[in-house]
Amino acid sequence: MIWGMGRWEPNARGRLEQAAMELFIERGFEQATVTEIARRAGLTQRTFFRHFADKREVLFWGQGALQELLVSTVASAPASAAPIDAVAAALEAAGASLQERHEHARQRQAIINANPELRERELIKLATLASAIAATLRQRGVSDPAASLTAEAGIAVFKVAFERWVSEPGQPDLPKIIRQSLDDLRTVTAAK
Amino acid sequence: MIWGMGRWEPNARGRLEQAAMELFIERGFEQATVTEIARRAGLTQRTFFRHFADKREVLFWGQGALQELLVSTVASAPASAAPIDAVAAALEAAGASLQERHEHARQRQAIINANPELRERELIKLATLASAIAATLRQRGVSDPAASLTAEAGIAVFKVAFERWVSEPGQPDLPKIIRQSLDDLRTVTAAK
Repeated sequence: MIWGMGRWEPNARGRLEQAAMELFIERGFEQATVTEIARRAGLTQRTFFRHFADKREVLFWGQGALQELLVSTVASAPASAAPIDAVAAALEAAGASLQERHEHARQRQAIINANPELRERELIKLATLASAIAATLRQRGVSDPAASLTAEAGIAVFKVAFERWVSEPGQPDLPKIIRQSLDDLRTVTAAK
Repeated sequence: MIWGMGRWEPNARGRLEQAAMELFIERGFEQATVTEIARRAGLTQRTFFRHFADKREVLFWGQGALQELLVSTVASAPASAAPIDAVAAALEAAGASLQERHEHARQRQAIINANPELRERELIKLATLASAIAATLRQRGVSDPAASLTAEAGIAVFKVAFERWVSEPGQPDLPKIIRQSLDDLRTVTAAK
């Protein structure tokens, strides 16, 4: 027996995530328990809680890194960059960081769409990212309402682009879809 | 005694709303009880529950009418109107409908900003309005991603404009701030 004895488990985190996603899809997020997730991964509950605060965190642990990437990319844009270009660079960097996990993102989105509480949590995540981007733009000297509008528009673009990306089969290019969506936003908002 | 006897109460709804807002500000949303709200209004709990499902509904009962106004204005725009112009007309109509309640909106926003659960509820409200606008644009023959992007951008404009409006003293003109914010969005997203 090597499982459940507190020793180092190879890729415990990845196995727990995979087991959790399978169970969320098979049984629904509400019904799946941490006990079942750990059992399917061949690990203990204790190991689960060393990696995740609760089962919801399996779906949202990436938010911190995503926010850090967005904020650091906006902050490190050249001083001469227009706010929207700094935000576009950040969204594309975020897109590139997610690109390899297309199948995971598709599964995650299906789980979230099926559960009102998770959809709310996802909205809060997006609003939190918009606030963080707006705060970073203000630190770059962008005043309001430009900072808020640029950040909110950027997150609106990201949301729509992400939904397109997860709904398309194959391995579509998320950074490219983000650039296209920003161009689409300019087109749809253009004054006649 | 005319209170609490089930007879018609003059402006019971308005009195309950006023009493609730006062108590939410004085004691916090969590702490204020329906019993206290009814007592301050000089009415019974039973009367309260004839008008509101719970104390949170005091802050969100307007959502249905707001959504109806947005959807019907988008739906009734001339067939030749660009999607963004249909949405702009809807947002301005919504702004005009809120204009007379500036002081109420200021108080409501302070209550919501002080409570994480209410902030989440407000985000859900805005996302629901964006979905309803996008669905109405699709019924007008607008395809995606243009429908989603126009709706999300419109709600981003509304959110930022509303925050500007409630943070300004006096009786600023909300429809005008909405128009300015849409122009600001065009400016901040313009390609160089």
